[in-house]
Amino acid sequence: MSTEASGLSRLSVNQETVRQWSLPQLAEGCAKAGLSQVGLWRAPVQEYGVERAGQLMKDTGLTVTSLCRGGFLTASDPAGRARALDDNRAAVDEAVGVNTDTLVLVSGGLPEGDKDLYGARERIADALAELAPYAAERGVRLAIEPLHPMFASDRCVVSTLSQALDIAERFPAEQVGVVVDTYHVWWDDRAPEQIARAGAAGRIHSFQLADWITPLPAGVLVGRGQLGDGSVDFRAIRRHVEATGFDGPIEVEIFNEGLWARDGGDVVAEVAARYLEHAC
Amino acid sequence: MSTEASGLSRLSVNQETVRQWSLPQLAEGCAKAGLSQVGLWRAPVQEYGVERAGQLMKDTGLTVTSLCRGGFLTASDPAGRARALDDNRAAVDEAVGVNTDTLVLVSGGLPEGDKDLYGARERIADALAELAPYAAERGVRLAIEPLHPMFASDRCVVSTLSQALDIAERFPAEQVGVVVDTYHVWWDDRAPEQIARAGAAGRIHSFQLADWITPLPAGVLVGRGQLGDGSVDFRAIRRHVEATGFDGPIEVEIFNEGLWARDGGDVVAEVAARYLEHAC
Repeated sequence: MSTEASGLSRLSVNQETVRQWSLPQLAEGCAKAGLSQVGLWRAPVQEYGVERAGQLMKDTGLTVTSLCRGGFLTASDPAGRARALDDNRAAVDEAVGVNTDTLVLVSGGLPEGDKDLYGARERIADALAELAPYAAERGVRLAIEPLHPMFASDRCVVSTLSQALDIAERFPAEQVGVVVDTYHVWWDDRAPEQIARAGAAGRIHSFQLADWITPLPAGVLVGRGQLGDGSVDFRAIRRHVEATGFDGPIEVEIFNEGLWARDGGDVVAEVAARYLEHAC
Repeated sequence: MSTEASGLSRLSVNQETVRQWSLPQLAEGCAKAGLSQVGLWRAPVQEYGVERAGQLMKDTGLTVTSLCRGGFLTASDPAGRARALDDNRAAVDEAVGVNTDTLVLVSGGLPEGDKDLYGARERIADALAELAPYAAERGVRLAIEPLHPMFASDRCVVSTLSQALDIAERFPAEQVGVVVDTYHVWWDDRAPEQIARAGAAGRIHSFQLADWITPLPAGVLVGRGQLGDGSVDFRAIRRHVEATGFDGPIEVEIFNEGLWARDGGDVVAEVAARYLEHAC
């Protein structure tokens, strides 16, 4: 059955959802599940070899919808800033290597002892002024991902779509946009208007799904839920996203130790079924 | 030394900060530390006896700045709603019993299987239409506490000051206001404008301090930090609150297992010192 006929043509499985799989397992498993798209992460891609990973996906007929992640651009010392820019240029090059047009940015938290969220966000914008043209020359769009406010201090000072767009709008839309990830924005009553704002300008560079479940685990990073297991109204958010004309990939990215402990093929089959049940 | 001379006249120690203390220990310990105000919680007050707890605080010269907590008003079934209203009327009566004018409301999360945050917030407003007059007749103000968005599904669908004020403003300011708790709002770039909105209408019914620290523990409820240990800029938030003319109590409410494991007197002395260092 074609992905079109199966209703899965828009679905992309992010590699971290099936972290237990190697890249060849991911390629084979997704192809076998009738999927045509995957999202990749830098560490496993680097380990496997960037060009080799890109070739593997191409040979398997898989489109790479995004590479995670650049960012961590909030350092206030010159050396830290220079290191971050170097690393982000490398991330852009890797995005080129795996043939994706989208690099997701997790912007970074507050430096030790710093309490100034506003200042940290300004440093991100300042760094993007260097990175965005570099990426654009190579055909890569940068996608600022607002992370849930529970990550504001240690991982991402950009907590809302509104904040992400305030930064992105300083650049051309084809250079810098945003990620709409249901896990991070589901609680926000301003998300619908901000999705409209992003979409109207062609700045929805990535649309990701994960469900919100509780209790959160220690550290809160790997507490995301399989679609349908939590509080997110996926259809409602998808309606807002598609009302803007967005017709790009819909990537499922779930960090969950329970999923990682299971057979990868079962997880991907479940993701596809839940996607059809809850997000279509 | 008077609390005025010590700079501690505005400070109130919330009982949960020193959960290891009984009510008599709390009264004696706070008085000994030169404090004149405390915030109380319903369960220990009920256990000790409501009128008796009120008398103890009065005898020790302590003003009770708030009682925590009413709320949990999001039930969608009639029986659950009726039970919640009964419990909140009891909470109002207990506030009267301990001689405080402020009952803090933690509004409640989503009912099982419900994904409609908007509907849940409407049910809170609907319940307050019954509760607010009951409380007002008894001299008690209701204070809606927006909780950090990480609690949106299971504890409080009111995640921002903006949402709390949208509900509060349906009622007279002397009946329904909000809590500004730094732990819950520090990340929100709209908090300053919303604090101004609340203050201009006389709706800041409680001002609470706790610091934001990471990593968050499992369940995330007891991960709050001692003032100065985290990312919150207390002086900046206090400036916003006081720019509205607010001159009420400043309550320190920290849920932290490390603090609970220590000597209560040491904790209160540290709270007072950190308050002077970071919030004055």
